[in-house]
Amino acid sequence: MKDIELNIPTYDDMLAAHVRIAPHIHRTPVLTSSFLNELSGAQLYFKCENFQKAGAFKVRGASNAVFGLSEAEAASGVCTHSSGNHALSLSYAAGRRGIPCNVVMPRTAPQAKKDAVRGYGGIITECEPSTSSREAVFAEVQAATGGDFVHPYNDPRVIAGQGTCSREFMEQTDGLDMVVAPIGGGGMISGTCLTLSTLAPEVQVIAAEPEQADDAYRSFKAGHIIADDAPETVADGLKVPLKDLTWHFVSNHVSDILTASEDEIVEAMKLIWKRMKIVMEPSSAVPLATILKNRDRFAGKRVGLIITGGNVDLDRLPWTKGA
Amino acid sequence: MKDIELNIPTYDDMLAAHVRIAPHIHRTPVLTSSFLNELSGAQLYFKCENFQKAGAFKVRGASNAVFGLSEAEAASGVCTHSSGNHALSLSYAAGRRGIPCNVVMPRTAPQAKKDAVRGYGGIITECEPSTSSREAVFAEVQAATGGDFVHPYNDPRVIAGQGTCSREFMEQTDGLDMVVAPIGGGGMISGTCLTLSTLAPEVQVIAAEPEQADDAYRSFKAGHIIADDAPETVADGLKVPLKDLTWHFVSNHVSDILTASEDEIVEAMKLIWKRMKIVMEPSSAVPLATILKNRDRFAGKRVGLIITGGNVDLDRLPWTKGA
Repeated sequence: MKDIELNIPTYDDMLAAHVRIAPHIHRTPVLTSSFLNELSGAQLYFKCENFQKAGAFKVRGASNAVFGLSEAEAASGVCTHSSGNHALSLSYAAGRRGIPCNVVMPRTAPQAKKDAVRGYGGIITECEPSTSSREAVFAEVQAATGGDFVHPYNDPRVIAGQGTCSREFMEQTDGLDMVVAPIGGGGMISGTCLTLSTLAPEVQVIAAEPEQADDAYRSFKAGHIIADDAPETVADGLKVPLKDLTWHFVSNHVSDILTASEDEIVEAMKLIWKRMKIVMEPSSAVPLATILKNRDRFAGKRVGLIITGGNVDLDRLPWTKGA
Repeated sequence: MKDIELNIPTYDDMLAAHVRIAPHIHRTPVLTSSFLNELSGAQLYFKCENFQKAGAFKVRGASNAVFGLSEAEAASGVCTHSSGNHALSLSYAAGRRGIPCNVVMPRTAPQAKKDAVRGYGGIITECEPSTSSREAVFAEVQAATGGDFVHPYNDPRVIAGQGTCSREFMEQTDGLDMVVAPIGGGGMISGTCLTLSTLAPEVQVIAAEPEQADDAYRSFKAGHIIADDAPETVADGLKVPLKDLTWHFVSNHVSDILTASEDEIVEAMKLIWKRMKIVMEPSSAVPLATILKNRDRFAGKRVGLIITGGNVDLDRLPWTKGA
């Protein structure tokens, strides 16, 4: 019954999104590393959304929402709340369309992300770093501006947009056995499920989550959404809880959820920087951390990893913090 | 008269090098950044040798030397002195051929580079961080091992190898007005001149150098080699002086040498990390630093920049030093 009430995006929505957003996004490269292949015993393929416009995959969903608005809808602009990359991406997309974008961000969000949101023309209102404060402050902002609410992940337009990433990924590889993506609110994972369940249903979708923000893992095991208020993790993009739309995809299509400790995440991040010479966020290192931790499970497989973003505060890297 | 005594590599040597090293190197990608284009007013193309095998362009010249040896010559292995990337690259190439590689490195070289040399199987002997100490210690090592000396830059095999980079660069772009590359000992610049003077003589070759290690700049102005002992700069790959072979190319084919301060180099490096999401060395940031400093000269031009390497010590980034 619940599914009927939900506005679940379809494979065709994803295809339409890809056409709509193509002029505004990069088809990001897929990189490999012989060192990391040897270390993991698997054949790893990294889809580098850190090279994406606005520095993260979230520009896919945000652009789909912004460019799908009618002229009348677009007049009042858009608004959202976000721990960072969605704010950036929505500001970028709104800027390309020439409409206003209001964003509510935790005051603790990395300064680099706040600066970048403002750089794209976004207007920031700060909240406390908890889900409850974020939602309260956002209600005020939305009432004041009348902008179209583009939720960072619990929005069918956003999920359809994120799904375009896996479509490219499959085109860029000779087939994969599994795709591992980080899970926070579940937008990327849901888009991945949406696309692969039709395009390549043989590919397992595995979500990777910080131990210290493992609400999706516990939800998956319990069979219903468990939401934490203000979990703490270096993977600051993954602190938000699942919502009904993303829970639909997680509960129906995800094969498993694996977790990694803070140290394992930072170690994996540093390994990627050092060996692949790319700048990416702590959140994006969780998939590799879980793969290295569960070596037997991935050995000999063709594994796709989604490097979700590259917007890191270079003055506050996790391994130099307090140095 | 002097030219006749020198063993100057030819365009055909570069072509032969490219065939010889192709199985051992990456054809590295060329990246662009709309942000940096806007900032500079130029059309910038970045040839990303930070993604190269062993993390730097130097694997081109080192592989050409190692794989050009006869079986008899190869038996005693190879040896060299290097501030880092050449040591790494020669160790990598020697490892691929299965012959020993002895390297003399300054004890102050980044730990990450020493670890990586050992990781490829290279045997390190440390010296003091001065040209004079390096050469004295090396003489001992060479006498003891009998290995073939592969100089980091003053070697025709090495220069021919480095020249393969610009050949790819021209194939990967629709033409360039200038190529800007860092200059230390002059190996990359010489290879660039070797290739472009035949392949695309209309392209200006400009060398970029740290103000604090500007011996090439002063040599260029004076018309003869000026060598400093132990200059200090964050661009640790660029501390070594020109030698007769590289001076041949610099004095005959380089259009100009531009310099940048330490702050300008670190600022340019951080800008590339932040905006392009790639990990590269301070040395590789000198070209962008000089372009941003001489905006009028480059505005409106198609400018190729060579990102020479990505082997940076992530625990000691120049903007967090002492933090």
